[in-house]
Amino acid sequence: MVNPPSIDELFDSASGGDRRALGKLLTMVEQRGDAAAAVSEQAHRSAGRAKVVGVTGAPGAGKSTITGRLAATSGAARPAILAIDPSSPLTGGAILGDRIRMDNHVSSGAFIRSMATRGHPGGLAVAVPDAVRVLDAAGCDPIFVETVGVGQVEVSIAAAADTTVVVVTPGWGDAVQANKAGLLEVADIFVVNKADRPDARGARRDLELMLDLGHRGDWRAPIVLTTAIEGTGIDELWTEIERHTAHLHESGDLNRRRCRRRRDEVTDRIEVGLRDQVQRIISSESGEAALGRVDQHEISPATAAKLLLDALNPNNPCEGT
Amino acid sequence: MVNPPSIDELFDSASGGDRRALGKLLTMVEQRGDAAAAVSEQAHRSAGRAKVVGVTGAPGAGKSTITGRLAATSGAARPAILAIDPSSPLTGGAILGDRIRMDNHVSSGAFIRSMATRGHPGGLAVAVPDAVRVLDAAGCDPIFVETVGVGQVEVSIAAAADTTVVVVTPGWGDAVQANKAGLLEVADIFVVNKADRPDARGARRDLELMLDLGHRGDWRAPIVLTTAIEGTGIDELWTEIERHTAHLHESGDLNRRRCRRRRDEVTDRIEVGLRDQVQRIISSESGEAALGRVDQHEISPATAAKLLLDALNPNNPCEGT
Repeated sequence: MVNPPSIDELFDSASGGDRRALGKLLTMVEQRGDAAAAVSEQAHRSAGRAKVVGVTGAPGAGKSTITGRLAATSGAARPAILAIDPSSPLTGGAILGDRIRMDNHVSSGAFIRSMATRGHPGGLAVAVPDAVRVLDAAGCDPIFVETVGVGQVEVSIAAAADTTVVVVTPGWGDAVQANKAGLLEVADIFVVNKADRPDARGARRDLELMLDLGHRGDWRAPIVLTTAIEGTGIDELWTEIERHTAHLHESGDLNRRRCRRRRDEVTDRIEVGLRDQVQRIISSESGEAALGRVDQHEISPATAAKLLLDALNPNNPCEGT
Repeated sequence: MVNPPSIDELFDSASGGDRRALGKLLTMVEQRGDAAAAVSEQAHRSAGRAKVVGVTGAPGAGKSTITGRLAATSGAARPAILAIDPSSPLTGGAILGDRIRMDNHVSSGAFIRSMATRGHPGGLAVAVPDAVRVLDAAGCDPIFVETVGVGQVEVSIAAAADTTVVVVTPGWGDAVQANKAGLLEVADIFVVNKADRPDARGARRDLELMLDLGHRGDWRAPIVLTTAIEGTGIDELWTEIERHTAHLHESGDLNRRRCRRRRDEVTDRIEVGLRDQVQRIISSESGEAALGRVDQHEISPATAAKLLLDALNPNNPCEGT
């Protein structure tokens, strides 16, 4: 019998390019628990070297194709792609699955990992930074994080990158102008994909107009037209990403961004921990009693929550002791 | 000087059909604080009479038009529409705004209220049930809750209804099949809108197939084809909504659903309360110290979160006293 490799050994192998070892570390992180904490701790010590690029946009905008092409165009020895699957909200199952993702990303040469949201916004907010950290510590660079950019959680995940690329397509119409606006503030670079369609120029004009109205700070998001399926415009897009990286370094924004990201992550992790406590409270005797009173329309859910929160935190009586 | 009307007086006026009083109560609920708690408490006492219909689907699917038409078709004296605006994730500002919503809903005769997510998933999960409660207590019925159905938070809000209608359009393509699958489990009724487009039947066939594979329980979601802009299919859709209402009553599912909803709401409210505490912890001296160690790569964000969580809960030392 051979002992399973230690975390140190797995990191050594992963850093040497062993994809199976890297996959194992990512699985450990996904499954949480003590092993996940140890992997995260180890990875954090050496993480922070890789360029992290978020790619987001509406479903069907061509994000996977763009990401795969970018990974190939980067010329990097070990690019990685973390593709976030929107999960079914009830069962927590992944929708797309590895197979489809792989097809879309095929031939990029990148290490590709598909991650499901597992039906829990909080869980994803915690799992993705850890996965990025592991890829980073294992020497992958650049790291692309790809999400569907419509929901708040999904957008915020893609926005937690050094450079955030927002992909739109021509002819979305009014309703999706809304999304463009929602994505405006997180975009460092805009891509109008499927630029061979008739109204690509119109889409660019709309974006320019919005940037004129909403632009702040000393970086104005460039707009790149691509036809990713044919590879058109990808070189230019990669150049803009590198230009943004240089800007981040020169302006000092890189440190500020990463510092804020770490702060957000600690907050998210505390919330996840608290959520476990909430479940305990709700299932407790006093939780059931409070819910019963809500069902009888005696007290509102707000009041029930307040009663249970007060019960959780015996801080006040202890103060001054 | 005249005193502002009391909460009781506002409810009296709102119940009598005074839209301004109703609007005021909803604003109070949105702004939170003590007044919100009092309004919620008062509303909860008499709420639970209205039929609540969630309408969700991709951006541009025609949800607003369908909802407006349904409100008119219902023949109800006082239908209400709660339209949830996806907010910009960074500033928390609403994207669509009342004006556009109003245009889309025009001529439905319904009381229409637009609500912004304010950049905070938790906030919305709490504000929407309270708004529904106020509308219900004020005698509005049916109440439509309309959200963009792509993100998890957004879908779960629309799913927190007696009947959830999921709107799709023909020709979404593979990528958005994913969304259909994500929405499959929350859908009590499917609508294929823009059914005058060529591949409407294909969309219906895809849905039927997915229902064949994934259908559980004793209600199979019917699929209704509509061309909402012309009003086609809306009568049939309303009939299906009423059929589902009857099913909920007969099967006892209505009580089960509402009971689960109240439980979820209490959970959400506790989480929001805890989140405030998290912010306090993060900003405290020990919070800053822990973040500093994360920045120095001494400890991982996970470890920092654990240290701070332990600091929040002095329960263990107090146990047994």
